Amino acid sequence: MTERTTELDRAHVFHSWSAQAALKPLVIAGGLGCRVWDFDGRSYLDFSSQLVNVNIGHQHPAVIRAITEQAQTLTTISPATANLARGEAAKRITDRAPEGFNKVFFTNGGADANENAIRMARLHTGRDKVLSLYKSYHGNTGSAIVATGDWRRIPNEYARGHVHFFGPFLYRSEFWATTEQEECARALHHLERVIQSEGPASVAAIMLESVPGTAGIMLPPTGYLAGVRALCDKYGIMLIFDEVMCGFGRTGRWFAFEAYDVVPDLITFAKGVNSGYVPTGGVIISDPIAADFDETVFPGGLTYSGHPLAMASIVGALDAMEDEGIVENAARIGRDVLAPALTALQAAHRIIGEVRGDGVFWALELVADRDTREPVGAAVMARIKSELLARGLLPFLIENRIHVVPPCVVTDDEVAEAVAIYDEVLSLDLLS
Amino acid sequence: MTERTTELDRAHVFHSWSAQAALKPLVIAGGLGCRVWDFDGRSYLDFSSQLVNVNIGHQHPAVIRAITEQAQTLTTISPATANLARGEAAKRITDRAPEGFNKVFFTNGGADANENAIRMARLHTGRDKVLSLYKSYHGNTGSAIVATGDWRRIPNEYARGHVHFFGPFLYRSEFWATTEQEECARALHHLERVIQSEGPASVAAIMLESVPGTAGIMLPPTGYLAGVRALCDKYGIMLIFDEVMCGFGRTGRWFAFEAYDVVPDLITFAKGVNSGYVPTGGVIISDPIAADFDETVFPGGLTYSGHPLAMASIVGALDAMEDEGIVENAARIGRDVLAPALTALQAAHRIIGEVRGDGVFWALELVADRDTREPVGAAVMARIKSELLARGLLPFLIENRIHVVPPCVVTDDEVAEAVAIYDEVLSLDLLS
Ligand SMILES: Cc1ncc(COP(=O)(O)O)c(C=O)c1O
Ligand SMILES: Cc1ncc(COP(=O)(O)O)c(C=O)c1O
Repeated sequence: MTERTTELDRAHVFHSWSAQAALKPLVIAGGLGCRVWDFDGRSYLDFSSQLVNVNIGHQHPAVIRAITEQAQTLTTISPATANLARGEAAKRITDRAPEGFNKVFFTNGGADANENAIRMARLHTGRDKVLSLYKSYHGNTGSAIVATGDWRRIPNEYARGHVHFFGPFLYRSEFWATTEQEECARALHHLERVIQSEGPASVAAIMLESVPGTAGIMLPPTGYLAGVRALCDKYGIMLIFDEVMCGFGRTGRWFAFEAYDVVPDLITFAKGVNSGYVPTGGVIISDPIAADFDETVFPGGLTYSGHPLAMASIVGALDAMEDEGIVENAARIGRDVLAPALTALQAAHRIIGEVRGDGVFWALELVADRDTREPVGAAVMARIKSELLARGLLPFLIENRIHVVPPCVVTDDEVAEAVAIYDEVLSLDLLS
Repeated sequence: MTERTTELDRAHVFHSWSAQAALKPLVIAGGLGCRVWDFDGRSYLDFSSQLVNVNIGHQHPAVIRAITEQAQTLTTISPATANLARGEAAKRITDRAPEGFNKVFFTNGGADANENAIRMARLHTGRDKVLSLYKSYHGNTGSAIVATGDWRRIPNEYARGHVHFFGPFLYRSEFWATTEQEECARALHHLERVIQSEGPASVAAIMLESVPGTAGIMLPPTGYLAGVRALCDKYGIMLIFDEVMCGFGRTGRWFAFEAYDVVPDLITFAKGVNSGYVPTGGVIISDPIAADFDETVFPGGLTYSGHPLAMASIVGALDAMEDEGIVENAARIGRDVLAPALTALQAAHRIIGEVRGDGVFWALELVADRDTREPVGAAVMARIKSELLARGLLPFLIENRIHVVPPCVVTDDEVAEAVAIYDEVLSLDLLS
């Protein structure tokens, strides 16, 4: 099975974000909870949640049951119909959203959720420009990839109206700041200067990951998101929170932005809403924006909007997360288990320059030198990856960081097991 | 159930391409083969295949089984891994593609398939512009919606590098042509003039639905696609065939372009590949383009690329289509049943200005006047829709056309039943 899987993969499967020739993809045969295994019985503790999407863990029986039952009834139907699973899913999502968010537009994933949020903001304001962070990822389609700030934008700049700015991140400040408070104030000043310089009347939206994920899990400092909201109000700009990675339990809350007492105009989601068991995503729309399209045609749509199988998996996942206290578990694990354990890890290993995070959403910033904060290089990261895998831990590594991002159902014992493996690997002579 | 479905839908579901307030979406509870039904036992013959995607019919047991089995094993896994269902799906797709197409990049639907094909063509050629038809639909994301030619592009023009041209369609010629041959020659001349005027060295790709679907099911005249291929070769332009709607059985062939003895450089697909049972789509990549990304990173990707559940449904659907001769059935129905029946319908009803199509992919062009070819208006179409629904037929209506697009598994009897309903409704006094 391993051989056939690898052979077919190498012959016929073209992989995301990769040079294809040298790929040696890991073969995964199955999984349960926080573990996955290959065909030869080798198992891994999944501290990646794959692409930080399997919030409920692998193969949660309630979600599998919901998918199986819907598959027996009606797998697919046009978005123009009314479908019970779709209504139930939309209700569960809006029930958890802030007051004044009553409608959901469903998409197939995170990228097209952001595309449609951008569309709505532009049509609502009659303006063009979308401001987003350099340190961000918003998806691979036309507008989403140009809203993205990281290197993946560069070969794809075919959408107009996108402007990027710097966000607060004291450890590597873009603003010569020395305290969180100063970093926050300067980041807001910088953003306002960008808005003023672009021309406020041309700015439709500011799109932000409530907590930037792929870019490094940088919790916004106190007051930052509220300050952005104030700028949006001042200049008539729509605020879009991209909760694709940070939403639905990842930070120990249903939505990451709840920690900051700020309400956006549009919320995008995917991943954690159903842990990716069936491809789906969407936009949660505040009433004033939804009302724009009561009498006017919304110029967006897709064949699988509100796909019954995906909708059933949302209902199954959200009900199980509620019934089993899975979001609360993520909060508790973050506060009582991961925070102290990762802080201890930093105390023990000079290579860890910073530890930051919340819930089951943590980053270890690895540096060659704590004083200069010089990031470790690619060879060190490759070594760490293979050493972690060899010890049965499936990690999420990016640039010079280890993202510690297990499923929200992770147990104290599993965290202890993983931390022991990180500890062992970081004890190796990595920098020589 | 009907009431709760409607109530939840109206309260919380935001629909594609619609003004939301006046919507009265049909409630569908279940389906099998070419029929769907509501909660009150009312059933409909589905001559829409929903959004022309349910090629294998509703709830095909082999596909449901494939989904259920995969759901028990592994619903989701990162695209960076190797997955058996993904390899098996990719192999079944490349086995049916022309020689020299060995790799598949999987997406979530048709729009992002086109996004990625455009990306590949641009990177392969180092050029920017993408030429596509005014009469076309390619999806709702950033580049795909601007590649789209119809009205849906207009409020969404935020991508650069897109140019549109007119295609051959003798019934409403843009070229003052009077024969198919003349229409074809003039359409090719027009396209070459657009290429020359844009600057051939700036044109990365020509993107075409092999048979334009939503725009009216206009089979290209003999020689047109070959002529486009020749222009692409002459000017070093990549040819992308969008087979999202016309592929995987719809025209009575695995790919619609097979009828024209022409091979493109990239093929995009979605819908029919798994009949939409799980959201998926993709790009089939010819070897020279795939080779560009052997050593160079491909700058595109998505969380659910090659999603196991979607992949299993592709394997299930394609195997069942093969085993049960479903593509052959679509060809036979088109040739022996729909062609004569729809021609007879035209003979009986002056409102039908033209009948055209192939396989289970037909359009009836409705006109107020056969001589002027003036399209019937929206009120007539609305009346036709409600009369068809009242008689138990779920139709696909767009602009002034009825698209006759049942699943590929449709039987002779089901066609007879549907044609009798069309006949009865078209016999009503519609134009007064
Ligand atoms: C914050 C954020 N937004 C959007 C996306 C894109 O989602 P998808 O890959 O489903 O298109 C991602 C994916 O990682 C993400 O992390
Ligand atoms: C020819 C064609 N291309 C692309 C698409 C977009 O596919 P999706 O709705 O899955 O994004 C469609 C959808 O109708 C289509 O007909």
